[in-house]
Amino acid sequence: MDEPSLLRESRPDYRWAGVSHMPYKEEGSAPFKAISRQVLFAEEKLGCELRYFEMAAGGYSTLERHEHVHAVMILRGRGHCLLGDAVREVGPHDLVTIPSWTWHQFRATGGEPLGFLCMVNAERDRPQLPSGQELTELKAVPEVAAFLAG
Amino acid sequence: MDEPSLLRESRPDYRWAGVSHMPYKEEGSAPFKAISRQVLFAEEKLGCELRYFEMAAGGYSTLERHEHVHAVMILRGRGHCLLGDAVREVGPHDLVTIPSWTWHQFRATGGEPLGFLCMVNAERDRPQLPSGQELTELKAVPEVAAFLAG
Repeated sequence: MDEPSLLRESRPDYRWAGVSHMPYKEEGSAPFKAISRQVLFAEEKLGCELRYFEMAAGGYSTLERHEHVHAVMILRGRGHCLLGDAVREVGPHDLVTIPSWTWHQFRATGGEPLGFLCMVNAERDRPQLPSGQELTELKAVPEVAAFLAG
Repeated sequence: MDEPSLLRESRPDYRWAGVSHMPYKEEGSAPFKAISRQVLFAEEKLGCELRYFEMAAGGYSTLERHEHVHAVMILRGRGHCLLGDAVREVGPHDLVTIPSWTWHQFRATGGEPLGFLCMVNAERDRPQLPSGQELTELKAVPEVAAFLAG
């Protein structure tokens, strides 16, 4: 038994001992902003992974959809998320279910970092980004257009 | 899309809208004390479940082991956990991995509630409780004996 790794202590500012902090690189037309990822659990036997994503104030995740399901718990801060054609405010410990093929995006709109846990199947399909046509359709809802404009 | 259930808001005292709070009944020789369970996510497509367990001050979970793996994040309070033959102190956001067939128990030793998230495969075996002989073996480690004595 690899004793030390069974307990990984929380560190200040939502980091963890023995967990790599992976900021996404923003290059060219990157569809995300100021977001980082930490993989907290990826045990093969679990079949699922638990990741922690965090956006700096004003940051946002990729607007995407996919077959696989996301189970999200907000851990830090307040912000908004797009769920299909609805925009919802989220705060600490709120639970968000993202069903298959539902457009979604998180935005740190509260002037503070927004961090959340995301449980996901270890075997999953690649996310799709919206086409120009799909983006136009999404923006037909004024609330969604305002959300996407930031 | 069942819109309202996609976002389930956090309520005071680590409860959630639309999530049943299930206190375990303590009867006779119940091997746990003052613990409750809330199932936060059990989407069939995920293959995993996310539960929130909470013990009142002085409470403890069942001492058990099983084939399936637990991935735990402490959400609330400080306490101790038994992991095999080691006793570890835990606090908010610490990550605990419980491998197959590892004896484990959580105890709210900090004079406050201890709450944690537990990610687990949806298909899993039933936990085993220790036999008298196994309990004697566990208590051969003085630190473990002290932990189990409360």
